Amino acid sequence: MPRTVIHNVTLATMQQAADRSAGFGLVENGALVIEGEQILWCGPQDELPQQPADATKVDGQGGVLSPGLIDCHTHLVWGGSRANEFSMRLHGASYEEIANAGGGILSTVRATRAASEDELYQLAAVRAAALIEQGVTELEIKSGYGLDTETELKQLRVARRLAATLPINVHTTFLAAHALPDEYKDNSDGYIEHICEQMLPQAVAEGLVDAVDVFCERIGFSRAQTERVFKAAQGFNLPVKLHAEQLSDQDGAALVADYQGLSADHLEYLSEQGIAAMKQAGTVAVLLPGAFYFLRETKYPPIDALRAAGVPIAIATDANPGSSPIHNAQLMLHMASTIFRLTPEEALAGMTCHAAKALGQNESGVLQAGKQANLVLWNVAEPAELCYQFGVNPLRQRWFKGRAVHDQTSTPG
Amino acid sequence: MPRTVIHNVTLATMQQAADRSAGFGLVENGALVIEGEQILWCGPQDELPQQPADATKVDGQGGVLSPGLIDCHTHLVWGGSRANEFSMRLHGASYEEIANAGGGILSTVRATRAASEDELYQLAAVRAAALIEQGVTELEIKSGYGLDTETELKQLRVARRLAATLPINVHTTFLAAHALPDEYKDNSDGYIEHICEQMLPQAVAEGLVDAVDVFCERIGFSRAQTERVFKAAQGFNLPVKLHAEQLSDQDGAALVADYQGLSADHLEYLSEQGIAAMKQAGTVAVLLPGAFYFLRETKYPPIDALRAAGVPIAIATDANPGSSPIHNAQLMLHMASTIFRLTPEEALAGMTCHAAKALGQNESGVLQAGKQANLVLWNVAEPAELCYQFGVNPLRQRWFKGRAVHDQTSTPG
Ligand SMILES: [Zn+2]
Ligand SMILES: [Zn+2]
Repeated sequence: MPRTVIHNVTLATMQQAADRSAGFGLVENGALVIEGEQILWCGPQDELPQQPADATKVDGQGGVLSPGLIDCHTHLVWGGSRANEFSMRLHGASYEEIANAGGGILSTVRATRAASEDELYQLAAVRAAALIEQGVTELEIKSGYGLDTETELKQLRVARRLAATLPINVHTTFLAAHALPDEYKDNSDGYIEHICEQMLPQAVAEGLVDAVDVFCERIGFSRAQTERVFKAAQGFNLPVKLHAEQLSDQDGAALVADYQGLSADHLEYLSEQGIAAMKQAGTVAVLLPGAFYFLRETKYPPIDALRAAGVPIAIATDANPGSSPIHNAQLMLHMASTIFRLTPEEALAGMTCHAAKALGQNESGVLQAGKQANLVLWNVAEPAELCYQFGVNPLRQRWFKGRAVHDQTSTPG
Repeated sequence: MPRTVIHNVTLATMQQAADRSAGFGLVENGALVIEGEQILWCGPQDELPQQPADATKVDGQGGVLSPGLIDCHTHLVWGGSRANEFSMRLHGASYEEIANAGGGILSTVRATRAASEDELYQLAAVRAAALIEQGVTELEIKSGYGLDTETELKQLRVARRLAATLPINVHTTFLAAHALPDEYKDNSDGYIEHICEQMLPQAVAEGLVDAVDVFCERIGFSRAQTERVFKAAQGFNLPVKLHAEQLSDQDGAALVADYQGLSADHLEYLSEQGIAAMKQAGTVAVLLPGAFYFLRETKYPPIDALRAAGVPIAIATDANPGSSPIHNAQLMLHMASTIFRLTPEEALAGMTCHAAKALGQNESGVLQAGKQANLVLWNVAEPAELCYQFGVNPLRQRWFKGRAVHDQTSTPG
């Protein structure tokens, strides 16, 4: 099998980053060996075993080599645009005026239903390509802008097609319980029943579902309705996650922890009790600084308490047209540190090892022998630079499953 | 002279954008003719005069054509990195501990003094190239990390060299009164005298100065010291601008207006009296959302009052290593709308026509016959998209002084 030896790099292995003191798992003057799709070896360069003469050699020129970034919460597949609604709001329009003009999430649902699978693919591929250029090698994509069987499955098929065509791992999440469609107005229990009896089974039958999610909120679905969907997921042996405690405390984090959930996401109104339940279940806290910024929220997730309890924290873009129209993973590292005051070590763990855990993915997110060789070589002297500067893309080179897929020089001619 | 005809575009001419109702100056189904370095004609496509058969034709495919973005406040030329200081702060270090570890602005001064002109050029060229990729065709660059004659001139020479080597207009600003160097500790009046008697005259003699700026603040220089520098600038017929009212009200905006200043920048603590003086003098209000975000400020500039008074508002990156390590013009459009609640029309005016005014530049910033043909063709259906979505670079093509200098397709293969 082909081998690549990357030398003259600082390794940010992200091993044991759950222990805050362990930080980046730095190895200065490091080296890493790729064989086939996997990492064969990594460690200090002076301990590097003899390599075959025909191995490809890459001089990292003192840069930082880290695991590829993982964006563990996105709604990347949608049709239409909400720029007009955004503009109306800035011009002083009320929510009622915007709703009367056809704005809000249901406008995205209408556009997503109307778009063909090919159209949705083209739109999402542009967004995914931007994330890839920023260093993302793994991505979660939720449905939830169809709210009917046909469109939810169409969204998930697009997600699968992105995985088949782009150098990126994609995890699909079934999120039909994202909002209430017009067809079930004043009948949310009926919609939940439809999800559990019809939509989810069909999506599973087509092999489109890696996990199941619900928007548990006063303006979304109740705790009882959420539990119904979780039980249906359990019936298919699918892991669950939850949009929890974003706008109010619904005790959703404890619920998803009860179901050994992968993650609870948003968490601005998370309680001590929710934190304890997450800690016990090993549920990851996914923080979404882009949505926090875009919605101009002022209530912060309880980060000190999460840290004190040792709950792993992941960071994601939440890329979506309503509350986080931001497809930039590097900006999330910056915002995690600037807005949420995460240390650079915590922020990078949030988009590598902890994001992998939030996806139930054991094959990536750290530099370690046996893991998938999803790697980014950065034009920076120390990993903290990745959280501190924003605007010049520091990505120099990138490997997906062991294959070099990107070369970029940021030095102008 | 060579002609280019761009057709099938929505023109965001930005004409008369100072009148809020005029908005983008939109011309749907528009066309624009470039001849040599200038715009020869722009207007509705069905009024396009007959063009020579050998004119280059560009089909805009329904995209938006706008003036190139103008970043009217940057500190783009510096050495070193403050990532370590950033990280220390997030790990809980006090300002004293950071100062003892050699952090703060004087660490950038040390690194900038130590760097060669070539090194500074390479660093700044990477930052400028990123801005160019985002659609910037014109840039201001301040000195202010030398604080001695040799290094201040070195910074300005780098700025001139960027203009000579990259497809971008560069305006230089002499900002030796940015901070107090160690050499003049406890003798700020002595430093001001040195600036007025030695540094500025030498920089002017080398042809390096387009404008003069001061950091007027309790932790910077006093109103009286600022005025001394302004008088020196006046002696050379140089326009002035001011870092004013960022952390406290020093009545700096009124002072710079008294000197017919181009702009007053930051302005979080701007008073009604300052606004009135700026309005009367035609001084532009330059808002810096990146610094506001990075410093986590909570006191907003008086935007409603500026708007009511009809003071033109510009937006800039303030790119610098201490308070705005953000080299992204598109993000500034997004933050201007999201954080400062500017309408998309105001935000785009802030980086086109009003930014040109803040630089005393009458040749660019609008689409109009006779202006420099600095243009960006965007992959968007309406200009509000430029403020609403962030992460996928919507730039499709770009002209600087009439010459196509960039082609980018954001569709993956
Ligand atoms: Zn979400
Ligand atoms: Zn500044």
